[in-house]
Amino acid sequence: MAAEVKVTFDRLKAFICEAMIKLGLPDADAATVAGLMAEADLQGSDGHGVSRLPQYARRIRAGGFNTRPNIHVVREHAGTALINGDNGMGHLVMKRAAAMAIEKARTTGIGWVSSQFSNHAGPASLYASMPLAHDMIGLYFAVGNANHLPPWGGLDMLLSTNPIAAAIPAGNEQPIILDMATTVAAYGKVKTKALRGEMMPEGWMIDRLGKPLTDPKRADEGMLLPLGGMEAGYKGYGLALIIGLLAGTLGGAAMGKDVVDFNHDDDSVTNTGQAIAVINISAFGDVDVFKASVDTLVRDLRGSSRMPGVDRISVPGERSHETRVARGRDGIPIAPALLRGLDQLAGELGIAKLA
Amino acid sequence: MAAEVKVTFDRLKAFICEAMIKLGLPDADAATVAGLMAEADLQGSDGHGVSRLPQYARRIRAGGFNTRPNIHVVREHAGTALINGDNGMGHLVMKRAAAMAIEKARTTGIGWVSSQFSNHAGPASLYASMPLAHDMIGLYFAVGNANHLPPWGGLDMLLSTNPIAAAIPAGNEQPIILDMATTVAAYGKVKTKALRGEMMPEGWMIDRLGKPLTDPKRADEGMLLPLGGMEAGYKGYGLALIIGLLAGTLGGAAMGKDVVDFNHDDDSVTNTGQAIAVINISAFGDVDVFKASVDTLVRDLRGSSRMPGVDRISVPGERSHETRVARGRDGIPIAPALLRGLDQLAGELGIAKLA
Repeated sequence: MAAEVKVTFDRLKAFICEAMIKLGLPDADAATVAGLMAEADLQGSDGHGVSRLPQYARRIRAGGFNTRPNIHVVREHAGTALINGDNGMGHLVMKRAAAMAIEKARTTGIGWVSSQFSNHAGPASLYASMPLAHDMIGLYFAVGNANHLPPWGGLDMLLSTNPIAAAIPAGNEQPIILDMATTVAAYGKVKTKALRGEMMPEGWMIDRLGKPLTDPKRADEGMLLPLGGMEAGYKGYGLALIIGLLAGTLGGAAMGKDVVDFNHDDDSVTNTGQAIAVINISAFGDVDVFKASVDTLVRDLRGSSRMPGVDRISVPGERSHETRVARGRDGIPIAPALLRGLDQLAGELGIAKLA
Repeated sequence: MAAEVKVTFDRLKAFICEAMIKLGLPDADAATVAGLMAEADLQGSDGHGVSRLPQYARRIRAGGFNTRPNIHVVREHAGTALINGDNGMGHLVMKRAAAMAIEKARTTGIGWVSSQFSNHAGPASLYASMPLAHDMIGLYFAVGNANHLPPWGGLDMLLSTNPIAAAIPAGNEQPIILDMATTVAAYGKVKTKALRGEMMPEGWMIDRLGKPLTDPKRADEGMLLPLGGMEAGYKGYGLALIIGLLAGTLGGAAMGKDVVDFNHDDDSVTNTGQAIAVINISAFGDVDVFKASVDTLVRDLRGSSRMPGVDRISVPGERSHETRVARGRDGIPIAPALLRGLDQLAGELGIAKLA
């Protein structure tokens, strides 16, 4: 078995960028997508970074992405906008949405920008974090790109793992960054278990009789449990539903039975919907006071006395930050199976291999 | 044992209103608080309606509520405002906040109003639902009034059950209304179990060793589990934290170790923080098209094939709506122990008994 290869952020970004240009994206768009995808890998969102490149390439070649989209504003008010992504890559659509919401929050105190005809955009936290540099809070909602969740008590897969992300600036501490699917486990974690030949713990999935399903190879026979599990899964179901309504239905994007499973469909327009809300902290009070309060809270949480066997208490975003630091220093690991797929793609596109 | 008494909504509201006037609230404020408290009982939020009256009365008499507050705007932008509740009853503060957020959303597309120096305001869904009549979406966040939740892996109670509520208009269907604590079970459910002499299911609470705690009389020895339970409770912890930052820290209200446990403290200023966001659907598209999409989604969810043993599938808010209809028709049940407390209060205040 081949040893795991590590690559720098810059090398990874350059590789993705070159691939995207060969696939037909304009240079600037290729650089934007590549930067965000490499950023995902850097922070440890491995399921949302370069591992998606072979799928994206397949979809572009099948005509499922518009490589020259006319991303445009459909409706706009002082605090809100709806952007039509023209079936371009979601990264391009949501980077623009975030920038617009930040500008709106600057003048009105809050900005909300929704997308329609967008696509998969990688980790929610990337976009929720964009307002941080402006001393603003980011909230991000998305309709997931495949339905694996039925309503509570049901069997029909009408909902996705619809994620929510939130990013809150701190002062001397790292920002608090939450990024979570509204299921107990994201579907990507199931796929990872299957690839590794491992069983899932009870509580991730159930079969159609409501019994625990622990063999990830049988995932197609079951469904994800909503956050809350058997005890309070109706809450996770409710959250997934509300997030879908906010990110999808509100902006005229796909939701419910209209969601396209883009893992099994390379050419249908997904009409993916996302939404970003940006809150300007200075509209509510002094930014430094706010940041000092967040610092104090983070230290109180981290300093809490601990349960037996617990060696540390984290706040959301802390481990991603550590991964970012470690991978920035040591390189980003690329699993052998992924590298083989990327090597093959590089051959097809006539570009240099990643490593 | 006395039979359970049932009272009409109007009678309940009149009783609470009279009590509030005797306790020192201006007539109009007493009517507002009474209407919202009776509304809570009507929709089945029993832990947030008249059952709170004896505690509110105790707190007013101890000087813990300001009965003549100067509720005022501290900061305002086109899309946002921060309201200082001057330690008045939370119902008054958040009704005003909701009205303000609705007006902002009318012109800017979205409005966000935060409170500081507010107080317990009853069920989150009451305020999230206020925008519905204006064809708008309501989102509500609050810092709970007692800390029962430690950080994930910790023992120090630094967080509350910080609830989130969302209300989405539909067309012919009832609106979708989610109202949930970010713990597996709200603390009120623990208290109800104790009152009934029943044990709790595993998964609601754990003791300081991380073992399941099922005896509600031992609740003081344990802590609530965040939504997600043992499997994914770090997600519920993250949600409770983010909601607390949005509802509390952002507006300069209490959060973390500054939260006052108002169940055990009748006179400290709680500096409770809440926030309401209102989204104007017409800023994103045609309202009728949106409502029709929600109707279709609700019917698809409700019509899903079901797990064995499941006799119906609900959408959030459906059961509250049914309770509202049934109690509007049959009356609102008042438990004997509660009625005794209300009778005693009526005697102290010199007003007619409830029933």
